[in-house]
Formats: sequence, C-alpha cells, structure tokens
Amino acid sequence: MAERSTPEKQARIDMQRAREQSEVDTALVRDFAYGGQARWEEHAHVVDLLSKDPTFDHRYRVYLTRKERFKESLKLAKRMHDLQDKHGWTDAQFRMAMENVGESSAYSMHYVAFEPVLRSQASDELLAEYGALIANRGLLGCYLQTELAHGTNVGGLETTATYVPESKEFVINSPTFTSRKWWIGAAGKLATHGVVSALLILPDGKNMGPHLFFVQLRSLDDHRTLPGITLGDIGPKVFGGFSTIDNGYAVFDHVRIPRYYMLSKFAQVTEDGHYRQPPHSKISYGGMLYIRSTMVTGGGWTAAKAATIAIRYATVRRQGSGTPQGLEEQIINYPAVYNRLLPVLSRAYVLLLLGRHLEKAFSAMNEGLARGDTSLLADMHATTSGLKVLVTTAVAQDIETARRALGGHGFSDFSGLGKIYANYIPTTTFEGDNYVLDLQVVRAAVKAYKRYASAPHSDPSTLPPTARYLRLLSEQSAADKATAGWTDPHTSVHLLEQRAAHMIREYAKHENDLDASAPQRVSRAATEAFVAVQVESFIQELPSQLPDKDAHILKDLLTLYLLVTVEGALADLLSFGVFPDCQQTLNGDPTGDLRRAIKRLELKLLPQAIGLTDAFGFTDWELGSALGVYNGAVYEALWDSAQTEPQNQTDVVDGYQEYIKPVLERGRRLAGRSGAKL
Amino acid sequence: MAERSTPEKQARIDMQRAREQSEVDTALVRDFAYGGQARWEEHAHVVDLLSKDPTFDHRYRVYLTRKERFKESLKLAKRMHDLQDKHGWTDAQFRMAMENVGESSAYSMHYVAFEPVLRSQASDELLAEYGALIANRGLLGCYLQTELAHGTNVGGLETTATYVPESKEFVINSPTFTSRKWWIGAAGKLATHGVVSALLILPDGKNMGPHLFFVQLRSLDDHRTLPGITLGDIGPKVFGGFSTIDNGYAVFDHVRIPRYYMLSKFAQVTEDGHYRQPPHSKISYGGMLYIRSTMVTGGGWTAAKAATIAIRYATVRRQGSGTPQGLEEQIINYPAVYNRLLPVLSRAYVLLLLGRHLEKAFSAMNEGLARGDTSLLADMHATTSGLKVLVTTAVAQDIETARRALGGHGFSDFSGLGKIYANYIPTTTFEGDNYVLDLQVVRAAVKAYKRYASAPHSDPSTLPPTARYLRLLSEQSAADKATAGWTDPHTSVHLLEQRAAHMIREYAKHENDLDASAPQRVSRAATEAFVAVQVESFIQELPSQLPDKDAHILKDLLTLYLLVTVEGALADLLSFGVFPDCQQTLNGDPTGDLRRAIKRLELKLLPQAIGLTDAFGFTDWELGSALGVYNGAVYEALWDSAQTEPQNQTDVVDGYQEYIKPVLERGRRLAGRSGAKL
Repeated sequence: MAERSTPEKQARIDMQRAREQSEVDTALVRDFAYGGQARWEEHAHVVDLLSKDPTFDHRYRVYLTRKERFKESLKLAKRMHDLQDKHGWTDAQFRMAMENVGESSAYSMHYVAFEPVLRSQASDELLAEYGALIANRGLLGCYLQTELAHGTNVGGLETTATYVPESKEFVINSPTFTSRKWWIGAAGKLATHGVVSALLILPDGKNMGPHLFFVQLRSLDDHRTLPGITLGDIGPKVFGGFSTIDNGYAVFDHVRIPRYYMLSKFAQVTEDGHYRQPPHSKISYGGMLYIRSTMVTGGGWTAAKAATIAIRYATVRRQGSGTPQGLEEQIINYPAVYNRLLPVLSRAYVLLLLGRHLEKAFSAMNEGLARGDTSLLADMHATTSGLKVLVTTAVAQDIETARRALGGHGFSDFSGLGKIYANYIPTTTFEGDNYVLDLQVVRAAVKAYKRYASAPHSDPSTLPPTARYLRLLSEQSAADKATAGWTDPHTSVHLLEQRAAHMIREYAKHENDLDASAPQRVSRAATEAFVAVQVESFIQELPSQLPDKDAHILKDLLTLYLLVTVEGALADLLSFGVFPDCQQTLNGDPTGDLRRAIKRLELKLLPQAIGLTDAFGFTDWELGSALGVYNGAVYEALWDSAQTEPQNQTDVVDGYQEYIKPVLERGRRLAGRSGAKL
Repeated sequence: MAERSTPEKQARIDMQRAREQSEVDTALVRDFAYGGQARWEEHAHVVDLLSKDPTFDHRYRVYLTRKERFKESLKLAKRMHDLQDKHGWTDAQFRMAMENVGESSAYSMHYVAFEPVLRSQASDELLAEYGALIANRGLLGCYLQTELAHGTNVGGLETTATYVPESKEFVINSPTFTSRKWWIGAAGKLATHGVVSALLILPDGKNMGPHLFFVQLRSLDDHRTLPGITLGDIGPKVFGGFSTIDNGYAVFDHVRIPRYYMLSKFAQVTEDGHYRQPPHSKISYGGMLYIRSTMVTGGGWTAAKAATIAIRYATVRRQGSGTPQGLEEQIINYPAVYNRLLPVLSRAYVLLLLGRHLEKAFSAMNEGLARGDTSLLADMHATTSGLKVLVTTAVAQDIETARRALGGHGFSDFSGLGKIYANYIPTTTFEGDNYVLDLQVVRAAVKAYKRYASAPHSDPSTLPPTARYLRLLSEQSAADKATAGWTDPHTSVHLLEQRAAHMIREYAKHENDLDASAPQRVSRAATEAFVAVQVESFIQELPSQLPDKDAHILKDLLTLYLLVTVEGALADLLSFGVFPDCQQTLNGDPTGDLRRAIKRLELKLLPQAIGLTDAFGFTDWELGSALGVYNGAVYEALWDSAQTEPQNQTDVVDGYQEYIKPVLERGRRLAGRSGAKL
C-alpha cells in the first residue's frame, strides 16, 4: 500500500481540489445571489466588522444557562447601538447588522413588529408624542397578540379594552385565566411598551372584535413593571431555540389608557363612545404579508447555510471501501448523499430568487394600496400564505436532511446545524400555523376555479397569477401533452401545472366528502405550480444576468429543483394519468426515466457544488460550524471546539467524590475485592 | 350567547368526556401493550417509587448548564444504587429503573455495551479476574469504537494493537490525529475501563483488522486518567440531546496491556504471536443485532409518549369557529390534526407488538447459535437492519409531527416533546447510519431474488421470511389481483408485498444504472412488506388475546397502520400498475377511495383515542409535559411551569443597569426628550 495522506491532511487537499475543479465564477454568482455587488459588499463589510469584535464571539454561548445567554444578548444589543453611533449607521444598516450577528434579539420585536404597526396605524396625536422616542428606541416595544388559550384564531381572544366615556379612557383587562397574553417576544423582560390586541367593548356593551392599543408596561425610570400589570418569561423553548428571546406573558388588571392610545388610523371610537368603521378592513394585513414574504428570502439563506455546511463536510469526509488510489471515497460521491444535498442547494437558490421577485411584487402592491387600489391584495395574500407553508416546511426538513447527511458528527452541537434548526423550526407553527394556512390557500384556489369553470369561454388571462394553471382545464390546453424530455424545464412546469389544475377540480368535485389530507395536498400542488412558473422565468432571465458558463450551471441547478418537485408529486401525477407514459405500466417502472434524469443532472452538478456554496459568501464566523469550515480542516476544528468544553478543565469530574467513588467502592465490596490492588 | 365555561375549566370537562365516551378497557389493553399484567405491575411499581423520590424530580433540569446536569445525573445513578441495595433489586430490575427515570445515564454504557461484549467475548482468564467487579460495577466501562475520522466503516479504523512477543503484551496506540476515539459514551468522564476496537498487528507487521481489547483508562484510587492516555468530553450535542452522557475522546500513546486483555473467545494471538481464526466470524454480531432489535420496542414507547401528549392536548385545546354550543372546536376533530396523530398512535401499537415478536425470534436464534446453528443469523441481520431504519426514521418524524400538531405551545420546552426528540434523533445516524443500512437490506433482498429467479420452480416456502413477498413474482400468484376492499387488512398486505416484489425485480434489472434513491425506496418497500405481514398476523391473534370490543378497536387501529403505509407507497403502486383501478385514470383520482377509507377509519377511531393513549399507562411524571397532563388542565400546567423559570425570580432583569438603561437613555437623548417625564 502506497504512503497515504492522513485523513486530516487529505481533507484540506480534497477541499482545495474541489475548488479547483469548480467552474463557477463565485464572485459573479455571489453578486447575483445577493442581488447586486453593492448588497454583497455592504453585507461583507458588516460581517467583517462584527466578526472581529469580541462581543460577538459566539463560541462560548452554548455553555451558558439561558439566563446568562439573555444577559449576553442584552450586552450584544448595547454594543450594536454603540457601533451605530460610532459608524453613523442608518436604521436599515443597524437592522442588517442585527440580522447578521448570529443570535436572535428581543430588540427585534421593537423594529419588526411594534414600530411598523404603530407607524401604519397609530393616530397622528400618538405619533407626535411617541414617534421620535420609538424611532430612537427611547422606549422598547413588543406586540401582544397571542393568549394562553388562543393563537391563530384572533377572533377568540379574550383580553378586553372597554371604553369609558366619562374619563375618555380605555380599560385594558385580562378577564379570565386564559386571557393572559402568552408567547409575546420581549414582553417578559425587555419591553417598556406594547401594542395590545384586545376586544373593543363599547359603552353599550357591544363587542367590536380585536383592535390595537398602545400600553406602557414598565417604568422608564427603573424598568419595574407598572401597577396593575403582571409580566414574566414563559420559560425555555424546545431544542434551546430562541433562548435569547424573552417570550413572555402579560396580565392586565383594569389598566387605564387615554383614548388616543387606541391605534385609530383606520377605526376610531369617538369621545362619546361611538365606533367609526375603517374604510377597508384588510388594509392592515400589509404588515403580516410583508413578514411572511421575508420568510421566503430568510428560508433561502437558511437552506444556503445548511447546504454549505453539509456539502463542505461531505466533500472532505471519506468513508467506505477504498478507491483505486487507496483512499476511501468522499461521501459526497455516494448517491444517497448527493441526492439529499444537491436538492437543498437548489432550493436555496430558488428561494433567494423567489424572495427578490416577491420584493418587487410587494412594491407594486404597496404603490397600489397607497392609491387605494386593493386589487392585488387578495392574490398576494394567497401567494404569501402558500409560500409561507411551502418554504418553512421544506427548509425545516432541509436543515435536518443536511444534518443527518453529516452522519454521527452531525449530532455534535459543533456541527452548527442544531442551532439553525432550533431557531428555524417555530416558523412552521407561528405567523399562521402551516396547516391552517393551507385552508386559506385552497379556499382562494377553489374560488378561482369556480369562477373560471362557471364561465368556460372566459379569457384565461383573467385568472389570478396564483391560479393561472387552471387554464389547462380548458379543452384546447389539455391536448397539449407532448413533452420535450426532462432536460427541458417546461416539461416539469407543465406537469406541475396540470397536477394543480386536476387536483383543484377533483377537490371541488368532492368538497362534501373530502379526505383528511386533501387541503394539504392541494395547497402544496397549487403553490408548487406557482413556484415552478416563476422558476421557469428565472431560468429564462439567466442569460441576461450571468455569463454563459454560470448561466448554464444555474439553469441545471434550477432544473434540478423542478425535477425533484415533480418526483415528489409522482403519486398525484400518476393517479391523474398525466405522467408521461403512465399507461405503459407492467413494462417496468415509468418513473425510472425521471429518476435517472435527476441522477444524471446531479452528477453533472456535483463538480460545481463547492463553487455554488462558496458563492453564498459565508464566513466561518457566520456559519459557526466545525464541519463547514472553509478550508476543510474539519477534524482540527472538532478537536479545537471540544477543548472549549468546561468539563475538560479538570481531569476528574465534579461529583466524583460524592457520587462515583461510593458506587465503585460498593462494587468492589460486593465483588469481594475491597482491599485488593487493582 | 349562553354563559360559557372558561377555556381552562372546559379543558378538564373535555378530557373527562373523552374518557367517558371511550369504550376501551384501558386496564386490559394496557396489560396487552406491556405484554402481560405482571410486566405492567412491575413497571408501575418502579415508576411510582421513583416519581416520589425528590432525586428524580426533573422539573428544574432544563435550567442547569450541561456540566451541572451531568453532576445531577451522577447523583441520580448513585441514588439508584442505594435503592438497589435497599430494595434488593436484581440487575434486571436496576436496569429497568434506570430506563424509566427519564434521563439517559453514562452508566448505561457499562451494562448495555461494555458488560455484554466482555461476557460474550472475553477469555475465561479475563473474566475470572474482572467478572465479579464488572457485574457489580466495581469498575465502570465503555465501548471504544468510533474514531474522529471513522464511524460506520470499521474497516477504516486507525487505532492499533500491536503484539510484542518479547513481553507478551499488546501496545495500544493512536498513530494519527484522526485515530483518536470519538463519541465514546462514558469515556469522557465516567468510565474507568474500556473495550477498545483496534487493528490487530502481528509481529510480522500483518494487519488482521479490528479486534477488541480490554484497557484500563482511569485509576481506581483517585479516578485520574492513567499515564499514556488522554481523555476528554467531545462537547455538547445538538438540541441539548444526551446532555447527561459524557461522549468522549480517548487518545492512546503506546499503552501496554497483557496478552489476555485481548477479547479472545473467538480469535486469539498465541504467545509467540500467531493468529488463530475464529470458528464463525459473524458470531459476534449477536450483540449488535440485539441492540437494534430493542430499538423497535423503544421506538414504540417513544411514539406512544408523543401520541399521548399530542392527543391529550388536541382533545382539550379548542380553536376556530364556534360549534352550535357556542364553544370553539376541539382541535382533535380537525382532519388535519387527527390525520396526523392517529397514525402515530397506530405506529406505537404496531411497534410494541413487533418488538415482542422480535424478542421471540431472538430467543429462537440464540438457542440455535448456542447449538452452533447460524442459519437464522443472516435473515435476522437483514430484518433488524431494515427495521432499525424504518422504525427510527418514522418515529423521529412522528415526534416532530406530534409536536407541530400542538401549534404554538408545541415550541415550549414544557411541551415535553423537544426533549424526547433531542434524545431520540441520534438513533437515525448511530448503530449504523440509516442510509448505509439500506444498502445491506437491499443486498439481502437482491440475493434472495436472484436465487429465486434462477430456480423458478423452487418452493416459495424456501424464501427467507424477509423476502417471502417474492413468491408473488411467480405467475400463479400474480394472477391473484382481487381485492376485498380497504376494510380487509389483507388488501393492504397484498399490495405492499406486490410492491416489494416488483421493486426488487426492477432494481435487479437496472442494477448497473440505478437512480440515486433506489436503495432507500427498495429497502423501505421490502421492510414495509415484512412488517405488513406481521401486522396481519397480529390482527389474526387479537381475538384470542382481548375481549371482542377491544380486539375490534385494535383491529381498526392496526388496519389504519396498513392503510397509511399503502398511502405512503402510492407512487410505487401506481407506477407498477398494481394499484386497484389504476387504469381508470382521467375519470378522477383512483386514490380517493383509499384516502376516504382512511378518513372513515380515523373517524371511527377518534372516540377511542384517549382510551388508547391512557392504556399506555404513562404517569404525568413519566411524560414530563404540561400539555400532556392526565386531567387536561394544560393551561394551569403551563402557568405553573413558567413560574419555575429563573428569570421570573426578579422583576427587573439582570443586565438592565449595564445594557438596557443606557440604550433607553440614548434613545431619549436622540429624541430630544432627555429630561421629560414619561
């Protein structure tokens, strides 16, 4: 056997070779992924600055209790304000820095939820008094909606805001045990003020449903909880997620606030206690829709991190029987590994592009709303609901897929993927539980179907973008069954649109005897069809955005996304008979061609994988993973990380004298060897 | 609107009503689930005793650092030894108590891995010296196999044990950076001794591959690491899993051990350095197979916990539009909820029965092995490999499915399901990575297929149990396509066997151009067919084991397992044309019947769900979940749990003065409100 490199040296060599063989122009693709060179440079500048500041060294956080970690996160936020002053950052730059610091912050509740809702819905009077304080964080806010017994269903909230015309005040109250606000980020320990969602009760006792009220929670002198209010932290979260967020509870015992503290830009209570209707009840959805849409880009960057860590480790980890060179195989070359990881990589790029597309759609909708045009709102609501479900479900799974692809070492916290999963996973149940949102997606699709089906000669171009696939139900389009093979993205797009159209029709037909998972399957089919159409347009735009070579690589990557989506849709496609060669059964498996096409595409993409992950531009500090280090020195990184473990500061463990020694002595006694030299 | 009960009172009422409406005889079904009344009573007795002992109060553990938790777990183990002495527990009773204490212990490495391997493979000389000490835990052991650069592939281990005939010793050495033992439970801090897997090097330099050696690691006088050895903890695990296990590293610098420390029951090195072959090389697999088989029962109890917590919470949680009684709907009544949770419940029962079935098969195999009969070993290897993959993948997913079905509150650590997931998830990557084991399952199946296909007139009864479905490939059986409808379990079993048979044949046909996920799909199909056959036999045995009413309920539950398995296999069944009415496409979705049959069965089972979870016999102490409390008082339990949060011991948070106050003051200054009364 020839002299072999040791595994830890070979790992660096493997990483270097992978970089050399990649044809990706990482700088160009990186600018493309970030949406322009300027955005990338701004990002890189901030990351460079933060990563060199010892305040943001995250290596030791895992050893702290949650209480200690919360204090650390307060220190971090304080430092970030100092940096804002020092460097003269705009508010947007401050937020961007907070987003890239690798730890969620209770401060984010102020500028993500509290501030936007006040800006868009508070009266001029309220903003005149508090606007500047809010903008400069001279008070710190939170948004109090969810209660102990109510989450998604805001109609079931129990907190009341009763108007008292005599004093021109609202009385905020928690009338039942279960009406206490719960899960409220920053309400436990940080926030001094909050926007409270409460049932508006008029003097005649009439319940006008949930409305928003500005309420002070803590003293600005000493941070103590104000009289009549009870605040606290609701305790730790699963997997150690959101440990630096003080998700809290708040109980109100007849707390009085002035009339103008009601957020009254769209609905008001007059001095004498009469209600004035808002001009358009849905106008306040804009904020929620925006939060959901940012989840697309956020999911993209999260999938990008998972893909980068896992693909880098799989490139340098060798395992299994030897190659002709006497080395074991790089695990990325095993079908079971690349077939799990390359789809994660493709989803990351798809979501980054889709997020940018949504940004533009949002601008258009907001320009419309500013003119009082609400025509784009309903479709945007369906789009963002469907995407929220599809993206968060898929990305959560991607992180675990990537982590498990790391094998045993993936269970080490130093893999970095555990933290990412822990902080990502609540997206599947918050901001609208995914299973509840599915119903909204299907409702919109069925509505579009019924309108279209009842007027069969109507123009397909009148279909809303989310339901454009329904045009395929008209006879002319149904004839269009020819496929150009799996390398043509349109083959997949057409199938996914057909699937969505058939499933919606079937759903509408059986609406009175649905099976139990129908809404989930139909919502998924509808949203996947919508995304597929966007992906096809992204592919068409590539040649104008990147040099040929990189455009081709990204075309392959986006096509992989489409093929894998079709593979996941096989049961639907086969059951509706729209899969190519579906009737050729018993001659063998008609899905084999698709699956082998996926494999061929993956093998074609494999040499580009490291280049495509490098193009995300993550630094080792951003990834926080011993297995995802840039230089491939994963074994040294694991070893160095283990040396930070507090248990390794002493040889003999704390507890030996009290708890281990007596057990060993007992055993020797029972074995009749008490005095023996051993 | 009529006077309504408050949500927290209604929750208790809902739970009580659910118990009243259930027809399950929980005592009888419980005895059945535990495998007899005696086993249940023994379990209940131990749980009662432990739950009353303050040492085993787990409510405050989440607030400790990992170092503190490890010390707590040492205290717990010490207490358990005291209880063993006090109550005169047998070793089996001691282990049972350790298994039910709700926290993994580094001590388990001693009796799960170290002790069994020594008992079965050490020489008589070694056992004479150490047997009694090992049995009484007068020394504490661990099993050192995995290394920094090698996991599943034991052939790639780098640690060496070189025989030196001059001194009749082996020299244990870690020759490279990556040869350090890694992930070794109990090696970090607890164990005094270990069984080390190392490449045996003979005096002539010949490498005989991995063999096992007994090595002392720490002094029995003061617990300090012995000279030439470096030990340490490898650091925290993802999601806080296994925080009480000191997974560690060990580095050996030419450590000398006597010749008889080699575990030499099956392979020996003579005094002058010659190797003696083991009589049967696979005989040592027994232990690993046993560990894998216990994962079936273990998975069953884990799924049972997840199902109990989620079904109880879903029974008392109300959400959504009001019912005619003015109450919101219990979420268990939503199809998206029961369709997620009842399959978890059914899997729990299937795995408990399957585990018991495996126990018997193991006894038969071991009796055979004792006689030198290894005929059952190969099939048992394929069976346990396939089941390990199927069970751990499914149960890990079940826990997350159950947790997400809890909605927002599922993200609270008090849900209890986060801890369960964190400690369960490594099963998917350890004891053989699931994706690697798939290859072994498929290899066995293809071998059976080729043997069967090359002798087409051979007797199907010669097929190994894991591949009996292959009989359907013979012409006579293929004609048997009639189905008796979805209520007959045999319909599902037949389809799942046909699917396995077709997929194996297709796999063998394309062996040189496989798609990338073929091994995973085929392994799954083969194992699901095997399990389906067992489930059918469990159903047939029910009437002799339970009264009619309970037998019928369990028949429905096990049938649900089969139907849901068929639903998951739809893409395969449709692509091979074996799904009933598969040719009737374009007339609508042929899978609708199956899916509606699932829904009908679920609706039938829904009133029994609480009874079926009660029959698992879990106490609140065992579940450790505020959302799974027996009496349904989930809101009080969440509130009480939150009061244990250390952050709630003070009103003003630690860090206010240093980090929050300056930020608020800065904001007031910037807003021009520094002196203002606010």
